[in-house]
Amino acid sequence: MDEDQPAVDPVVAETAEDIATMEIRGAATIADAAADALATQADRTDAADPAAFRDELRAAAKVLYETRPTAVSLPNALRYVLRGMAGDTVSELRASTIARAEEFRTELEQAQDQLGKVGANRLRDGDVVMTHCHSTDALSCIEAALDAGKHVEAIVKETRPRKQGHITARQLREWGVPVTLIVDNAARRYLDDADHVLVGADSIAADGGVINKIGTSGLAVNARERGVPVMVAAQTIKLHPDTMTGHTVAIEMRDESEVLPDAERADVTGERSDDEGLVVENPAFDVTPPRYVDAIVTERGQFPPESIVTLMRDLFGETTGEPWEP
Amino acid sequence: MDEDQPAVDPVVAETAEDIATMEIRGAATIADAAADALATQADRTDAADPAAFRDELRAAAKVLYETRPTAVSLPNALRYVLRGMAGDTVSELRASTIARAEEFRTELEQAQDQLGKVGANRLRDGDVVMTHCHSTDALSCIEAALDAGKHVEAIVKETRPRKQGHITARQLREWGVPVTLIVDNAARRYLDDADHVLVGADSIAADGGVINKIGTSGLAVNARERGVPVMVAAQTIKLHPDTMTGHTVAIEMRDESEVLPDAERADVTGERSDDEGLVVENPAFDVTPPRYVDAIVTERGQFPPESIVTLMRDLFGETTGEPWEP
Amino acid sequence: MDEDQPAVDPVVAETAEDIATMEIRGAATIADAAADALATQADRTDAADPAAFRDELRAAAKVLYETRPTAVSLPNALRYVLRGMAGDTVSELRASTIARAEEFRTELEQAQDQLGKVGANRLRDGDVVMTHCHSTDALSCIEAALDAGKHVEAIVKETRPRKQGHITARQLREWGVPVTLIVDNAARRYLDDADHVLVGADSIAADGGVINKIGTSGLAVNARERGVPVMVAAQTIKLHPDTMTGHTVAIEMRDESEVLPDAERADVTGERSDDEGLVVENPAFDVTPPRYVDAIVTERGQFPPESIVTLMRDLFGETTGEPWEP
Amino acid sequence: MDEDQPAVDPVVAETAEDIATMEIRGAATIADAAADALATQADRTDAADPAAFRDELRAAAKVLYETRPTAVSLPNALRYVLRGMAGDTVSELRASTIARAEEFRTELEQAQDQLGKVGANRLRDGDVVMTHCHSTDALSCIEAALDAGKHVEAIVKETRPRKQGHITARQLREWGVPVTLIVDNAARRYLDDADHVLVGADSIAADGGVINKIGTSGLAVNARERGVPVMVAAQTIKLHPDTMTGHTVAIEMRDESEVLPDAERADVTGERSDDEGLVVENPAFDVTPPRYVDAIVTERGQFPPESIVTLMRDLFGETTGEPWEP
Amino acid sequence: MDEDQPAVDPVVAETAEDIATMEIRGAATIADAAADALATQADRTDAADPAAFRDELRAAAKVLYETRPTAVSLPNALRYVLRGMAGDTVSELRASTIARAEEFRTELEQAQDQLGKVGANRLRDGDVVMTHCHSTDALSCIEAALDAGKHVEAIVKETRPRKQGHITARQLREWGVPVTLIVDNAARRYLDDADHVLVGADSIAADGGVINKIGTSGLAVNARERGVPVMVAAQTIKLHPDTMTGHTVAIEMRDESEVLPDAERADVTGERSDDEGLVVENPAFDVTPPRYVDAIVTERGQFPPESIVTLMRDLFGETTGEPWEP
Amino acid sequence: MDEDQPAVDPVVAETAEDIATMEIRGAATIADAAADALATQADRTDAADPAAFRDELRAAAKVLYETRPTAVSLPNALRYVLRGMAGDTVSELRASTIARAEEFRTELEQAQDQLGKVGANRLRDGDVVMTHCHSTDALSCIEAALDAGKHVEAIVKETRPRKQGHITARQLREWGVPVTLIVDNAARRYLDDADHVLVGADSIAADGGVINKIGTSGLAVNARERGVPVMVAAQTIKLHPDTMTGHTVAIEMRDESEVLPDAERADVTGERSDDEGLVVENPAFDVTPPRYVDAIVTERGQFPPESIVTLMRDLFGETTGEPWEP
Repeated sequence: MDEDQPAVDPVVAETAEDIATMEIRGAATIADAAADALATQADRTDAADPAAFRDELRAAAKVLYETRPTAVSLPNALRYVLRGMAGDTVSELRASTIARAEEFRTELEQAQDQLGKVGANRLRDGDVVMTHCHSTDALSCIEAALDAGKHVEAIVKETRPRKQGHITARQLREWGVPVTLIVDNAARRYLDDADHVLVGADSIAADGGVINKIGTSGLAVNARERGVPVMVAAQTIKLHPDTMTGHTVAIEMRDESEVLPDAERADVTGERSDDEGLVVENPAFDVTPPRYVDAIVTERGQFPPESIVTLMRDLFGETTGEPWEP
Repeated sequence: MDEDQPAVDPVVAETAEDIATMEIRGAATIADAAADALATQADRTDAADPAAFRDELRAAAKVLYETRPTAVSLPNALRYVLRGMAGDTVSELRASTIARAEEFRTELEQAQDQLGKVGANRLRDGDVVMTHCHSTDALSCIEAALDAGKHVEAIVKETRPRKQGHITARQLREWGVPVTLIVDNAARRYLDDADHVLVGADSIAADGGVINKIGTSGLAVNARERGVPVMVAAQTIKLHPDTMTGHTVAIEMRDESEVLPDAERADVTGERSDDEGLVVENPAFDVTPPRYVDAIVTERGQFPPESIVTLMRDLFGETTGEPWEP
Repeated sequence: MDEDQPAVDPVVAETAEDIATMEIRGAATIADAAADALATQADRTDAADPAAFRDELRAAAKVLYETRPTAVSLPNALRYVLRGMAGDTVSELRASTIARAEEFRTELEQAQDQLGKVGANRLRDGDVVMTHCHSTDALSCIEAALDAGKHVEAIVKETRPRKQGHITARQLREWGVPVTLIVDNAARRYLDDADHVLVGADSIAADGGVINKIGTSGLAVNARERGVPVMVAAQTIKLHPDTMTGHTVAIEMRDESEVLPDAERADVTGERSDDEGLVVENPAFDVTPPRYVDAIVTERGQFPPESIVTLMRDLFGETTGEPWEP
Repeated sequence: MDEDQPAVDPVVAETAEDIATMEIRGAATIADAAADALATQADRTDAADPAAFRDELRAAAKVLYETRPTAVSLPNALRYVLRGMAGDTVSELRASTIARAEEFRTELEQAQDQLGKVGANRLRDGDVVMTHCHSTDALSCIEAALDAGKHVEAIVKETRPRKQGHITARQLREWGVPVTLIVDNAARRYLDDADHVLVGADSIAADGGVINKIGTSGLAVNARERGVPVMVAAQTIKLHPDTMTGHTVAIEMRDESEVLPDAERADVTGERSDDEGLVVENPAFDVTPPRYVDAIVTERGQFPPESIVTLMRDLFGETTGEPWEP
Repeated sequence: MDEDQPAVDPVVAETAEDIATMEIRGAATIADAAADALATQADRTDAADPAAFRDELRAAAKVLYETRPTAVSLPNALRYVLRGMAGDTVSELRASTIARAEEFRTELEQAQDQLGKVGANRLRDGDVVMTHCHSTDALSCIEAALDAGKHVEAIVKETRPRKQGHITARQLREWGVPVTLIVDNAARRYLDDADHVLVGADSIAADGGVINKIGTSGLAVNARERGVPVMVAAQTIKLHPDTMTGHTVAIEMRDESEVLPDAERADVTGERSDDEGLVVENPAFDVTPPRYVDAIVTERGQFPPESIVTLMRDLFGETTGEPWEP
Repeated sequence: MDEDQPAVDPVVAETAEDIATMEIRGAATIADAAADALATQADRTDAADPAAFRDELRAAAKVLYETRPTAVSLPNALRYVLRGMAGDTVSELRASTIARAEEFRTELEQAQDQLGKVGANRLRDGDVVMTHCHSTDALSCIEAALDAGKHVEAIVKETRPRKQGHITARQLREWGVPVTLIVDNAARRYLDDADHVLVGADSIAADGGVINKIGTSGLAVNARERGVPVMVAAQTIKLHPDTMTGHTVAIEMRDESEVLPDAERADVTGERSDDEGLVVENPAFDVTPPRYVDAIVTERGQFPPESIVTLMRDLFGETTGEPWEP
C-alpha cells in the first residue's frame, strides 16, 4: 500500500519532521500543528475526485501520526479533523476539512481558559486545595476562581523526585495564594485541612483510569479515606484514544539519577563496589482507578470518570483502526 | 511535698543529669540507665523502714522522670521496676527491687533479638518486604529471617524529607538483600509486588494507634487497599503509657529546611522577598489507626493493635497518676 | 446588547411575571409554562428573517430564565425547545419550534407515569421499600408496582424537620400499602428489613451527585453498608444544567423555627437571655455522591448516576453559556 | 390490532418456528437468523407504500420476538435492524433495511474476534488470569493475547455445579496455556497470584449490573478486596434492552440434581424418608454490581460498566416499548 | 435450693425492694446501693463458718439481682464485691468483703470525674464535637476539657424522638460552649465540620458492640465515611456481663406516641379509621459494631472496643453462671 | 541434652506412640490423652526433689509434644498442665499437677456444651444461619438454640471439594432444622436471606486470623459486604500457641484427586497425554483476617478476634520457647 501512497504536501512533511525532532512539542502545540497541517493539505490539494482527496488527507494523517505514535494529543487532532471531512465534491470536502481544522484549533486555544472556568465553579470561596505535581490545567481552575473573586488557599505536595510542586507553589505565590508546602509523605495528615484534591492528567483512559504523575493514585486513595473529593483537570486532547480498544498506557521509566543522584549513591551502596543488588525504579506516572476520582473537568464541562468514554467517542469517533483509516 | 522529698542517691542525680543533657539518649539506653539508677538507689538505701524505702524509690523515679517527661521508654522503665518493689522489710524490698531492675535490663538487652525472631516467623521464604524510614526493630525481623535461611527482598521507600530509607537500604545491602529503591510517591504502584509492609514505631498508643515516621499512615491505607498486610515492629518500651489515660501523643514539628533547603527556597518564592504566604510544614510523625495494621510484633510476641492496651496494663500497670505514684 | 433586545410577546412577559411571583410554581408547571410561552412567541412572531426569529426566541428565553435562575426545570425547558429550532426560513423555524415545544409538553405530561413504570420494574412482588421525605416521582414507582399487581410494603422515615414522611405514609395508606413509620434515627436498624431505599431528587448534578432532602446522603451511606440498593426517582427536568459547567448547587437554608420552634426554645437556652452561642442550622438538602446510588430512574429509562451527564447532554445540549445563547 | 396484522413472509415464519423449537439456538445464531429474516422480509415485500412496508417489517419483528421473549440477543437484532429502516420510498426503505441487516450480520460475525483483540490489549505479557465458568468471549481475549505473542497463565475455577471450568481448562491447555485448576472455595487464596479476573456475561443490564454464572459476584467482591481488577468480556448482543426500562433479569433456577445427584441424596437426608425440610436451590446466575467490575470489553471497545447504558442507547435506541414499536 | 436459702439481712431486703420499685434508680445509684447492701450483710453476719458466710453473701446477691435482672450495673456491682470476698475465717471474709464494697463505692463516686479527664485528654484546644442524645459521661469529657482551659465547640443533634439533644445543648450553653443545633438528618453534612463524634452508652457488649440511643450506629457509619473518629464515654458499670456469654442485649421498644403523637395521627392515617396497616416502631437503642468506634473512654482509661472484653473479665470475672454463683 | 533426659513413664511413652500412630486422633481426644499422661507421670514419679520432678514432667511433655508438633491442641494441653505445676515439695507438685490435669480434662469434656450455650445466645428465635463445612463446635451452637426452644433454619454450603456440607445438612435434618442446600458459588446470593454466618475453626492465630476450611475467608468477605455478621465457634484448645511468636500456620495441601477425580481427568486434559501444564491445587484451609469476623465463641465466652491473644496468654502463658521449657 505504501508505494501507492498519495504524495503529501511539503508543509505536512515539514510539520511531521518538526514533531519528530521535538521542534514542536507539548500536547497542545503538537495538536495545533497537526490540525494546521491537515488544513494546508486540504487547501493545496490537487485531488481529481473526492476519493483522491480523502486518500490524500489520510496519507497526510498517517505521515503525521507516525512521527510520535504515543503522543496522545496527535491522533486526537487527526481523528477530529478527519471526522469533519464531508461533502460530495472536492470543493466541499476542502471547505469542510479546513473549517473543521479551524474549529479544532480555535477550541484548543480557548480550552484551558474554558476548563479553568468549569473547575473554578467547583471551588467555593475560602476553600483549601491540595495539589500534586504541576499542571497548567489544574492551575487554570485556581486562576479562574481567583478571577471570580474567591479566596483560595493551597497545600502543595513537593512531588518527588523532580519537585514540580515548587513550580506550582511559585505560580500560586505569584497570584497571592497562601501556600503550605509539604513533603509527599505528609499528605494524609494535611488532607484533614483540605476541601479538594486537584490534579492534572497526563492522559485519561477509556475505562476511566487517570494516568498522572507518580503518587497521584496513592493520594487519591487517601483522599477518599479522609472524605476529600478528587478533581482532575484535563483538556479533551488528553483523552487517550488507544485505550478505547483496551490498550494500556505504557508508563515511562525515567532515569534513576532523579531518585538517587550520584552524589548520594555511596550512602546507599556503602562499600559494595558491585551493587547489582540495588535497583532504582523511577516510573513517571501511575494510574488512578475511576472509583477514586470524583470529577474530570474539561473544556466541555465536568464528567464522572466512568462516562469519559462517551465523550471520547463523541469527539474522536468509535474506531478500532488507526487514526487515518476510514 | 518537695521540701520533704527524700534525698536521692548521687548516682541517680547523675543519671538524671545525663538524660537531661542527652549524654544518655535513645529509647533503650535511657530505659536501661533509669532501671540501673533505681537499682543503685535500692542498693545504697539507708531507709529506716519500708515506707521510707518506698518514698526513696519514688523520689528517685520522680527525679529521673522529670528530665524528659515525653520520652516514652523512661516512664515505662520506672513503672516496671517500681511495680516489682515487694516485701515486708527493707531488706526484702531492696532485693525485689534490684531483681526487678535486673530483669528489666536483661529483657531489654534481649528484646530486639527476640522481637526479630517473632517478626521473622511472619516472613516466608521468598517474600518481598516494603519498608518506610529506618527502624532497627524492623530490620531485626529481616535479619532473623535471613539467619533462618529465608530469602527476602526489599522495596525501600526513600522516606523524605530525611531519606532514612538510604540507611535502611545500605544495611540491607550489607546483608546481601536485593533492594529496590523508590520515591515515596511510587509506593502504591510497587505494593503490587510486596508481600508485607514492615515498619517500626516511635510509640504505640493505648487505642492501638501507631505513631511512626510521617508517611506511615498513608502507606498503610494504600497497603490495605492493595491487599498487603502491615506489620509494625516495636519493643514494649515503645508502648506509650500516657495514652492509657487518653493523652494524645504530641507530634514534633521539625525544621522547615529539611523540606525546603535554603538553596531551593528561591525556586518557590520567586521574586517575592516577603513570603509570609509561604509556610513549610514538617511534622516528624503521623498516627496510623489500628484498623490499618495487621500485627504489632514485640519481644513478647505479636498482637493485633486493638489488644496492645492489655499488654501495656500487664507490663506497666493501670494508673492514672504519675509513674512514681503508688 | 440589552438596548437592541428584540421585543418579546406580551404572553411571554406575562408568563415570566407569573413565574417570578410564584403564581406559577412547581418544577413541572414552570417547565410547561415556559415551553408554552416560547411556542406562543414563535407563533406570533413578526420576524423578517431567520436571524431575527432566532433573536426573538432567545430574547424570550432570556426574559423567562431571569425570573428564577435557580429553578432547575426552567432552563431545561428553554434549552430543550431552543435546540429544536431548525430550518432555513422563518416559516420552517416557526413550525419546528412550535412542534418542539409541543413534544416537550407532551412528554412532560407523561413523564411521571412513564418513570413510575420504569421504577416499578425494579420492584419485585413482596419487596419492602424504605422512603425518605415525600416525592411524587418516587411514589409513582410504587403506584405502578401496585397497578402491576405486586405487593409492596413500606418503611417510612418521618423526615425531620418538616415530617414530610407523614404525607408519604398517608398516600401509601390510601393505596393500601402496609406502612411502618419510624424516626430518622432508626433507619439503619430497619434497613435490615428493607429491599430498596427509594427517594426522589430536588435536582441531579452532572457529576452524578443527587441533591435531595437533607438526610438522604446519610441514609444512602448506611444503605450501602447494610447491602441495600438505593434508587432515585427523578424526571429529566431535574437534571441540573448548570452543573455541567462545574457549578455546585446552592443549598437553601431554611428557617430555624422548623428545627427549634419558639415553644421549645427555652428548653435549650435555659436562663441565657442572650444566646448568641446557640446557632440553629437548617439546610433543606444535601448531596449524595454517585457511588452510593445504584440507579436513577427517569421517564427515559434507568441510568447509573455516573452516566446521567450523557443524558443531560443529549437532551439539553453541551453548552457553557446561558440557556438562550447559541 | 392482531387481526389487521400484515402477513409475514413464510421465511420469517419458518425462522420463528426454528427459534421457538430451538433448532436455532445460541445468542449469536439467533441474532443472525433474526436479522436475516428481516432482510428477507424487506427483499420480498409487496408493500404498496412506505407505511405498509414499515408495518410489514414490524409485524415480522413481532412474530420473531414472540418466539423467545427472554432471549436477550433477539430483541437486540430486531431493534438494530428496524432502527436502520430509512427512506421516503419503498425502494429506499427496502435497500436501507437490507443493508442494515447485512451490517448487523457482518459485525456479528467479526464481533468475537474484535472483542478478543480489545480484551487482549488489557493483558500484559506474563499475566495470570483467573477464570470462572466457560465463556468463548472471555477465551477469545486470551487467544488474541497468545496470537500477539504474549505469555499468559490461567487459574481456572471449576465452577460448581456443572464444572464448566473443565471446558475452559481443556481449551486453554489445547492452546498451551499453563493451567492451575482449583475449587471455587479456593478463589480468594489464589487471587493473590492473579493479575486479572476474566469472565463472560449472560447479559448486561442498563444499570451496569453483570448477569453471569452463579459465583461471579462473590468472586468479584473478593477480587476488589484483594486488589485484582475484574474484566467482563461480552459482545454487544448481550446488552439487555429490557433493563433500560428497569426490568430486572429473571434468574433461571436449574434442576436440583445438578447440586445433589440422586446418588448423594441419602448422604444428606439420612433416614428421613420424608425430607420436605430439605430444599436444594440451584440458581444459574447472579448479578455483579457495577462497582465491582473494572471494564466491560465488547467488540466496540471497552467501557466502564456505568457507561454501558449509553452504548445500549446508541445501538438499540431509547425505547420504552416493544422492539417492533415505532 | 430455695427453701434452704440463708436468710438475708432486712437491710438487703429493703434495698432490693427499693430497687424493684424504682425508689432507687439510675445505673450508678443502683450499683452503689447494691454494694452497700452486701457490705451491710457482711457486717451483720452471724455465719458460723466461712461456708455459711459465703452462702449468706450469695443469697443476698441473689435477692438483689432478681429485682431487676436486666439492669446492667446491678450484676456488675454484685460480681465485683463477691470477687473480693477472701479469707480463711469469717472475720477475714467479713473484712475483705466490706473493704471490697467500699472500694467499689469509692471508685464509683469518682468514676465520672476520672472518665471525664481521660476523655478530655483526647480533645485538643479548638476541637468541634458532635453529640447524639444526652449523656453525663460524655458531657464530663467536655467539662474536663473546659476545666483544662481548652476551647471546645459542639454540634448537637436534636435526637428524635425525645430530643434529648436539647438537654445536652442547654448544659453546654450553661458552660459557655458555642452550640450548633441540627436535626438528626443533617448529621452527615455537619460531620465535615466536626473533629470528634462523642456519645455515651447504655451498655457495652463483650463483642465490642456499643448499645446506645437509637441513631448512634447510623451516625458512627457516617463518621467513618467522613473520616471523623468516634469516641464513646462509658463508666465500667456499663460493661454488660451477660454478653460475655453471648447474650444479646434486648432493645426496649418504647411507646409509639413518642414518634407519632395523637395530635399528628390523623395526618398519617387520613380517612382510614381502621389503620391496622400503619405500624409505628420506636426502639430506644441500637448497636454500633466495634469497627466503627475508635475508643471507649472509661474511668480506668481508654480502650479500643475490641479489647473491652478483657477489662470486663478483669473487673467482674469470667463466669458463665449467675452473679451469685461461685 | 537428650542423653541426660529423665526417663518417662511407660504410660506416657504408650500415649505418645498412640498419638504418633493416630490411634489417638482428633483435637479433643489428643488433648485429653496428653493431660492424662502428664497426670500419670506425676502420679508415678520417683523424683527425689522438686527439680527432678519438674525435669521429669517436662521430659514427658517433650516426648508427647514431638509426636505431632503441628497438632494445635497437644501443646495447649501440655502448657496448661505444666503451668499448674506448683509447690515447694514433690508431694505438693504432684498434687497440683494432677489436679491441674483433672481440671483441664473436666473443662475439656464440658467445653463443647458450654460453647454451644454461648453461641446459642447470639441466635434469636427465627434466625437463619449459613454454614460452611462441618464443625461440631458450630453445630453445638445450633443444638443449644434448639434446646432453648428457638426456631432456627440453615442455609448449608456444600463445601467442595469434600462436600462436608452434606454431613452438616444431615445432622441438622436429624434435629428437624429446615435446610437449604446450595453450591458454594451461590453463597453471596443467599447471604441476603441469612442472619448469621456460622463456622468452626481448625485453629485461631494470635493475630486474630481464623484458620478454617478453604472458602471461609471468601465467604466472610462477602458476608461483610452483605451486612451479615460472622461467628466462629471454637474451643480454646484451637488457639494456636505458636502463632503468639509470629509463626504462620502451615496450610495442608491435600490430594488433587479430591478436586479432579481420575474419572474426570480426561475432560480437562483432552488429548494431551503429557499434561505438565495442568496443576491442581487443593489447599485444605485458608485464613480469614480478624476484620471480617464479628465474634469468636468459646467455652469461656465470646471474644472479638482481636482480643483472643489475651485469652491465649491467660490460658497457656506467654512463652517464646517450647511447651516443655520453663
